Amino acid sequence: MAASKEELTLLGVMGSPFLHRVQIALKLKGIEYKYVEDDLNNKSDLLLKYNPVYKMIPVLVHNDNPISESVVILEYIDDAWKHNPILPSDPYQRAQARFWAKFIDDKCVAPAWKSAFMVDETEKAKAKEELFEALGFLENELKGRFFGGDEIGFVDIAAVFIPIVQVIAGLPLFSSEKFPKLFQWCQDFHNHPLVNEVLPTKDQLSTYFKARVQSLAPKNKN
Amino acid sequence: MAASKEELTLLGVMGSPFLHRVQIALKLKGIEYKYVEDDLNNKSDLLLKYNPVYKMIPVLVHNDNPISESVVILEYIDDAWKHNPILPSDPYQRAQARFWAKFIDDKCVAPAWKSAFMVDETEKAKAKEELFEALGFLENELKGRFFGGDEIGFVDIAAVFIPIVQVIAGLPLFSSEKFPKLFQWCQDFHNHPLVNEVLPTKDQLSTYFKARVQSLAPKNKN
Repeated sequence: MAASKEELTLLGVMGSPFLHRVQIALKLKGIEYKYVEDDLNNKSDLLLKYNPVYKMIPVLVHNDNPISESVVILEYIDDAWKHNPILPSDPYQRAQARFWAKFIDDKCVAPAWKSAFMVDETEKAKAKEELFEALGFLENELKGRFFGGDEIGFVDIAAVFIPIVQVIAGLPLFSSEKFPKLFQWCQDFHNHPLVNEVLPTKDQLSTYFKARVQSLAPKNKN
Repeated sequence: MAASKEELTLLGVMGSPFLHRVQIALKLKGIEYKYVEDDLNNKSDLLLKYNPVYKMIPVLVHNDNPISESVVILEYIDDAWKHNPILPSDPYQRAQARFWAKFIDDKCVAPAWKSAFMVDETEKAKAKEELFEALGFLENELKGRFFGGDEIGFVDIAAVFIPIVQVIAGLPLFSSEKFPKLFQWCQDFHNHPLVNEVLPTKDQLSTYFKARVQSLAPKNKN
């Protein structure tokens, strides 16, 4: 209530691709915000207060109004600040972008994670097969330098976990022979000045990944 | 290419809540369209052509441009025809509506289905527990007559499967004591003239449900 008009806080954990989606969008809009690092093993009262449903980062808090779920936050940022649009203006192109962002969440995120970190080789191979099927669709969809055309857009931002795993963590999900366009996109996206500035360091990633691997591993110890 | 400006076709299967989401949105906008019934056991060439990724209904085809995934279609309808808005105009309210629609897809749809149709009693009880946890959040979120306030909006449309199962199919997911506000919402939503006109008959539902139950049942016969 007492908040100034543009009080903007972002709760996150460095290394989380879902956080970095939001950071790239805010960078693209040139919006300043206060970043608060959370701890997934000891969640802050602020996180529990602002995302009581999922208790997960990222949460963007704008004038005491919390928004969670990274793709919902991207839409909010594009709705609330109209300059440097993330989504195309044409309704059909917007629908296509939303379709592919949802496809990435539904079909790519879990298999990519498992392909990179799963210990069980059979499960890993199965995840890789699922991932390759999904990436085949994305490779086919990549018509320009970026999914957004000449510049980064909604789908590129949604796909940020691919270069995070592939380029920064150095855990190649696929080769340049397998998906030549996606491979080049990974490099271009990672090296884009707006993106490169907000992506985590290898050390930050390593810390985050350790926690993630632990949470994915079968619970064989008490 | 040769299509007239407003050539609009909807591919669906009567009884599918995902189809009915789109039908309610089109009704709410007063938009005429050609409906084409598909067959999930023998998918049409049109469906395979227009939704090569998921091969699932509903697909809305607007001047030969296909859009799939029901929530993406709702957004498209609201973007392409601005009158009688489905989403609120305020960016924060839009974000909230998107959050709850996503919550419904992520946390309610599968457990509701399983609660109604699962044969295994242990699995059914587990699904009901998950469903009740999720519905508790929705009950708490229902501040007016509808999620959209005095009139039907994005979240109401996303939640259409609840009255379809509860009211039309007569398979009560919950009682008026358990979730009094949601229970009343179910009746009000089902009886709303815009909604009632497009919802399936009990016979259509029965046919659809049989196919769904079959697809959910363990494959113990060849």
